[in-house]
Amino acid sequence: MAEKKLVEAITSMSEDFAQWYTDVVKKAELIDYSNVKGCMVIKPAGYAIWENIQRQLDERFKATGVENVYMPMFIPESLLNKEKDHVEGFAPEVAWVTHGGLAPLQERMCVRPTSETLFCDFYKGDIHSYRDLPKVYNQWCSVVRWEKETRPFLRSREFLWQEGHTAHATAEEAEARTEQMLNVYADFCEEVLAIPVVKGRKTEKEKFAGAEATYTIEALMHDGKALQSGTSHNFGDGFAKAFGIQFTDKDNKLKYVYQTSWGMSTRIIGAIIMVHGDDSGLVLPPRIAPTQVMIIPIQQKKEGVLDKAYELRDRLKGFKVKVDDSDKSPGWKFSEQEMRGIPLRVEIGPKDIEAGKCVICRRDNGEKIEVALDELESKVGELLDQVQADMLAKARKHLESHTYVATNREEFEKLFAEKSGFVKAMWCGERACEEEIKEKMSVSSRCMPFHQECLSDKCAYCGKPAKKMVYWGRAY
Amino acid sequence: MAEKKLVEAITSMSEDFAQWYTDVVKKAELIDYSNVKGCMVIKPAGYAIWENIQRQLDERFKATGVENVYMPMFIPESLLNKEKDHVEGFAPEVAWVTHGGLAPLQERMCVRPTSETLFCDFYKGDIHSYRDLPKVYNQWCSVVRWEKETRPFLRSREFLWQEGHTAHATAEEAEARTEQMLNVYADFCEEVLAIPVVKGRKTEKEKFAGAEATYTIEALMHDGKALQSGTSHNFGDGFAKAFGIQFTDKDNKLKYVYQTSWGMSTRIIGAIIMVHGDDSGLVLPPRIAPTQVMIIPIQQKKEGVLDKAYELRDRLKGFKVKVDDSDKSPGWKFSEQEMRGIPLRVEIGPKDIEAGKCVICRRDNGEKIEVALDELESKVGELLDQVQADMLAKARKHLESHTYVATNREEFEKLFAEKSGFVKAMWCGERACEEEIKEKMSVSSRCMPFHQECLSDKCAYCGKPAKKMVYWGRAY
Repeated sequence: MAEKKLVEAITSMSEDFAQWYTDVVKKAELIDYSNVKGCMVIKPAGYAIWENIQRQLDERFKATGVENVYMPMFIPESLLNKEKDHVEGFAPEVAWVTHGGLAPLQERMCVRPTSETLFCDFYKGDIHSYRDLPKVYNQWCSVVRWEKETRPFLRSREFLWQEGHTAHATAEEAEARTEQMLNVYADFCEEVLAIPVVKGRKTEKEKFAGAEATYTIEALMHDGKALQSGTSHNFGDGFAKAFGIQFTDKDNKLKYVYQTSWGMSTRIIGAIIMVHGDDSGLVLPPRIAPTQVMIIPIQQKKEGVLDKAYELRDRLKGFKVKVDDSDKSPGWKFSEQEMRGIPLRVEIGPKDIEAGKCVICRRDNGEKIEVALDELESKVGELLDQVQADMLAKARKHLESHTYVATNREEFEKLFAEKSGFVKAMWCGERACEEEIKEKMSVSSRCMPFHQECLSDKCAYCGKPAKKMVYWGRAY
Repeated sequence: MAEKKLVEAITSMSEDFAQWYTDVVKKAELIDYSNVKGCMVIKPAGYAIWENIQRQLDERFKATGVENVYMPMFIPESLLNKEKDHVEGFAPEVAWVTHGGLAPLQERMCVRPTSETLFCDFYKGDIHSYRDLPKVYNQWCSVVRWEKETRPFLRSREFLWQEGHTAHATAEEAEARTEQMLNVYADFCEEVLAIPVVKGRKTEKEKFAGAEATYTIEALMHDGKALQSGTSHNFGDGFAKAFGIQFTDKDNKLKYVYQTSWGMSTRIIGAIIMVHGDDSGLVLPPRIAPTQVMIIPIQQKKEGVLDKAYELRDRLKGFKVKVDDSDKSPGWKFSEQEMRGIPLRVEIGPKDIEAGKCVICRRDNGEKIEVALDELESKVGELLDQVQADMLAKARKHLESHTYVATNREEFEKLFAEKSGFVKAMWCGERACEEEIKEKMSVSSRCMPFHQECLSDKCAYCGKPAKKMVYWGRAY
């Protein structure tokens, strides 16, 4: 009876997707709620995923010339107030430090919700000449936003992220960097996380506070809701003018710099869960899995079985492999490996050893493959590649089959009433129309995709002349 | 004239060590002061050192079974108050968050100065049975202590560190882990940072707030002052009792866990600077240097010179190599490479190319070595190993030649009046004696070294019967 508890305790996705999500997050031991309201404890299994994300994303950043730095976590109120749109966007949701030690502060400071203002303040003192440009800096840190409703990974008062902040001599260079980093995010999602994304630009309404343009990658979760998975902002010279960041150019003239910022956060772990997970728990793509292969000995008390399991582990040292040699039953171990989303399970028992083979079970589709022991290394390598490719293909198919087209209001409303997914539709470009859609239907514009199609010449919602094709969706 | 500015701008160590330190930190571009009082901006050259420390220390941690996690950065006041000694130690120097968004908080929270209380609160809910033990968790994060006087790396209101927090079934296991982690720190300092340390136990007066025992590694800076470089605390079951962290043992009895914590911070970068630096700037041990070899082309406008420099870089791809192909003069580039502490400089010009050789200059001792180009890879490898070994030997010699022995008060006072360094002396073990020494002489007990010697049978300061040999010193 106890054997099945782990699996039984999970709500099925079709029954209650939100509860399924919470169950997976808890049962796969990714996070724990903490007594600090709205904040979470990221447990080893969750943090190991974040470490893998960090390492691989950081490598991709550095290949484009990014350098890491660290800025203070506090922002004096006067600094936050320097850029008008920015402070309006963030001031309502920051945490304020008012006392240091036993004394009140002369000026209160917020804990950074994002660090544009700190980087600007730094760049103002550090940039003098065109020789000092570009600055392509990034930091890995935690930020705080005082959210009222919180959900593990998706929305919490404190979360981990990276934030890149760059300064350039020309508007063109800043635009190129903004797009480059969006592509880094998109490629990372597809190649490492097996999550296909839609790349595009946010509308004026949805863009970042203080940005000229915000680019985004939008992913589609299993329940048909969208998740904004990474953003890249072009600030033009707006912050530079607010903060007075100038440099002497080659022509000896004083000019303002052009800036960008871009970020990806622990939110993306929520995407991994909701794109790939199933009713048995987490399903991790091999390239991000902290453990890629779990070897589970069958009848492990029989002589030679555990030794064989360790031997296989040692032979697979090019991969991330563990042996579950605990005193639980094989069935229990299978459930745990499934719940934790470990891509491959190797089953090895006395009969297998005698026959010189083992059974490999794929987490993503349940397929069982008999493998000769002397082919183990190459087969595991092949299978991990196959799992990675198949997971991306499956997610892409889901994205495509859940992307609909609406050309008039009836279709638009019907699709959101009956289906869940993205709806592609033409839009008039007017904020009032977008706001009405959001208010009446709880649907937001996800992005104006870079890949534009002409679906009709009228706004699908209001019928005015169309300006842009937009991806619409309900979102996390 | 401008050529020499970089070097001239540094104060010499002998003239004013404190100013020399500040100059190096600024000129080597490790940090910048920020407009957030008491906080610093860690610039790319400084952060790259921290990344190398993180990566290598983290690897050593994981080899001992450590798992990384992430706890909230806020501690509710009631949680901080749970362990009496601990709150007394930290409450006077924390930053308090009193408002979230636009509303005052029901209970104020401090930004973590250290996370014992958060880990305890988590462990209380997460540990039930002996099967859940040990917990060997660590986190990399920033912490805040509201210091009045601050200095780059050595003391700032916010700093980066790692903090390990473990829970064990027995007191013996906790003690073993405390010692194990101290040894990890000591080995890391010696093997990677080329900094020899004295290992020992802190006195009751100097131990961590809430600990039963604090172990420390103490390093000696070039000016003869000590720097506490890493600490490891055994809490016994004190925190467990304050927080109620209990587990059911194999004998089915409810027991309290035994805990430890241990940390190393960005402070250690201060030690690297002050142990190895010289009047030309920073000197980095090869194993921690972000750039190990700087190739500087001579007469780089002559045909083939830059190409040769790039070719050498590509051949040295097993090392961290850069070419300085900027339009500065070679002399200026030499000064910069020296200021930044890059271990080896490769000089390559038209005559060298013709002769099939180059000149390698060691940063640590200025030695110039002519090397045949076809032996470059092996020679660079050998030289980096040699520099690493020689830097440790030199630092060890300095530590030994600046460690003195006092057997009575006259000697003790004379040594601190005339010399700078550690003074080994017997101590009565009484807090009042230790406090008098600190008050009258500004000298603190650094540690009771594990390696005890019997220098006399009386306390060198008060003459009472001796209990322990202590390392005394002036400290950062």
